[in-house]
Amino acid sequence: MGVRGMNTELDHIGIAVREIESALVAYREALGLSLDAIETVPEQGVKVAMLALGPAHIELLEPTDPDGPVGKFLAARGEGIHHISLSVPDLPAALAAARAAGLRLIDETPRTGAGGKLIAFLHPKSTHGVLIELSQRGEPRS
Amino acid sequence: MGVRGMNTELDHIGIAVREIESALVAYREALGLSLDAIETVPEQGVKVAMLALGPAHIELLEPTDPDGPVGKFLAARGEGIHHISLSVPDLPAALAAARAAGLRLIDETPRTGAGGKLIAFLHPKSTHGVLIELSQRGEPRS
Repeated sequence: MGVRGMNTELDHIGIAVREIESALVAYREALGLSLDAIETVPEQGVKVAMLALGPAHIELLEPTDPDGPVGKFLAARGEGIHHISLSVPDLPAALAAARAAGLRLIDETPRTGAGGKLIAFLHPKSTHGVLIELSQRGEPRS
Repeated sequence: MGVRGMNTELDHIGIAVREIESALVAYREALGLSLDAIETVPEQGVKVAMLALGPAHIELLEPTDPDGPVGKFLAARGEGIHHISLSVPDLPAALAAARAAGLRLIDETPRTGAGGKLIAFLHPKSTHGVLIELSQRGEPRS
């Protein structure tokens, strides 16, 4: 429960890796996370391995396109956490709250992400260096 | 559930910030997370704001000592995610699994962290750029 009753939860932690297969040695074999699925998301230029972490996930993001967002991140920064995704029951209300608090939005209005979910990114300059994806929890609404 | 039955869960995401008060505008007011506590941990050289994120937490870490680990991180990298902390029911077993999988450990054996919890850090070189703290879930055992 937040002060605004937004009921924000962690959806996933997205980690940019060069190669999913080798990253699975650390995250599956050593850390004991179970692999739920591996999917390719061509519009984002990534292959994604989803590992269960309690009610949330760790997503290992391997670029399939060096000019996509994860490919560029890897080239500039190397492997590491790329973004965190927080889910909210009402994404338009959450974006309005973010705007009212003076946060800078990358997506002014929700757009459709992987799997048909409504998502919007907040700019890391206003979230203290963390790229945050907000997603609408529950069924896609568009 | 992991392949090894380690039952790994997220404990918290630690974010290095220059000043907790201004970071709370983003994380509490805009993102709707509720503030559970603010504590000073002198041995780590940080002030910590714990915000509930479902069953886990976001920890905002403000350095009180520029030569502590968070102070040095901020000077070198700026604000952003400093580490993630994963809890396991059996930390010595988890460290043995990490070692067996070839991961590099910062702490070869568990040590006592804030609040008396047993913790150990894995080296980000072997976890694909992510500083991971493992912690023993439940009551401190030492």
